[in-house]
Amino acid sequence: MPRTVDVDARRDRLVAAVCEVAVRDGLDAVTARSVAAAAGLSLGAVTRTFASQEQLHAAAMRAVAERVAARSAAVPRIGDPVRCALALLDQVMPFAEETRAEAQVYYAYVARARAVPALAAIADEVDAALLASCAEVVALVAPGARPAAVVELHALTEGIAFGLVTWPHRRDAAEQRQVLADWLVRACG
Amino acid sequence: MPRTVDVDARRDRLVAAVCEVAVRDGLDAVTARSVAAAAGLSLGAVTRTFASQEQLHAAAMRAVAERVAARSAAVPRIGDPVRCALALLDQVMPFAEETRAEAQVYYAYVARARAVPALAAIADEVDAALLASCAEVVALVAPGARPAAVVELHALTEGIAFGLVTWPHRRDAAEQRQVLADWLVRACG
Repeated sequence: MPRTVDVDARRDRLVAAVCEVAVRDGLDAVTARSVAAAAGLSLGAVTRTFASQEQLHAAAMRAVAERVAARSAAVPRIGDPVRCALALLDQVMPFAEETRAEAQVYYAYVARARAVPALAAIADEVDAALLASCAEVVALVAPGARPAAVVELHALTEGIAFGLVTWPHRRDAAEQRQVLADWLVRACG
Repeated sequence: MPRTVDVDARRDRLVAAVCEVAVRDGLDAVTARSVAAAAGLSLGAVTRTFASQEQLHAAAMRAVAERVAARSAAVPRIGDPVRCALALLDQVMPFAEETRAEAQVYYAYVARARAVPALAAIADEVDAALLASCAEVVALVAPGARPAAVVELHALTEGIAFGLVTWPHRRDAAEQRQVLADWLVRACG
């Protein structure tokens, strides 16, 4: 079905362009025109693929979430539990360039979600997925830990991620990652 | 100096009105007109007090920060360290209605700070003050703790505060406060 492949490929290219513009210039700069330019496609290609700006944004937010989920699923669940847990969290947390760009887009959408119901629904799904990741991490490093440990790790990861995205000049990614690693080691004990 | 008192009182009233409108309708709804209406003052009173929308916002953000700082300063530093630390954090964290409104305004400003240098400078000051509060709390409950404990508490409080403001339907304030209290007790041990 070459037609479907073409449509899917165009969609992927446009979603990547949304993320590119959002990270570079902020969400307000994401328009059909700027996305078409970033994708190297026509304005018509954008408007044929997405019926509205809201659909474009929802697709981009979902794409970021799916990319993170796919990488997390691919992490081998074997070997040292703390190392394994940290490898999982490295897929989500903005410690590297790629994850930092994803988290920037995510928090920009979360800030906008209040006014856009379609985004709020996806933001809720992503938050639920992050909570599930924290539950998996706690089960790995401290099977049988108090349930509040999951709530604490969820808050800690949120604080670290939001802090790195919001205060890049006031936070050090390596230091924040070490705080998380230390938490995992203490949870083991 | 009755003139100064009048000017200060009007300023306070307008700043309170900014916060009221921002919490109720979001920052985008904060205009000279909506603030004048909420304060029960004339449009001229707003434009005479603040030369620009940016000045109005900067004054409101600073007012929120000063109110939190004044309450924190008034907390007695005596008695059980964990109870004292929690009393301090209760002035900052959005566990109650008043602090929740303050945190809503704060995070709305933080989201906007990227585009408004005057707000970014105040946001940096507030973040530095929050870090100092965390340092004081750690010094109270665990004098001589590893320095990373302050970084961890800073991230944990950020995650809890941002979570409560952003996901009020997905977070429980009492549960989040208990997570913080448990952290303080463990830090003591």
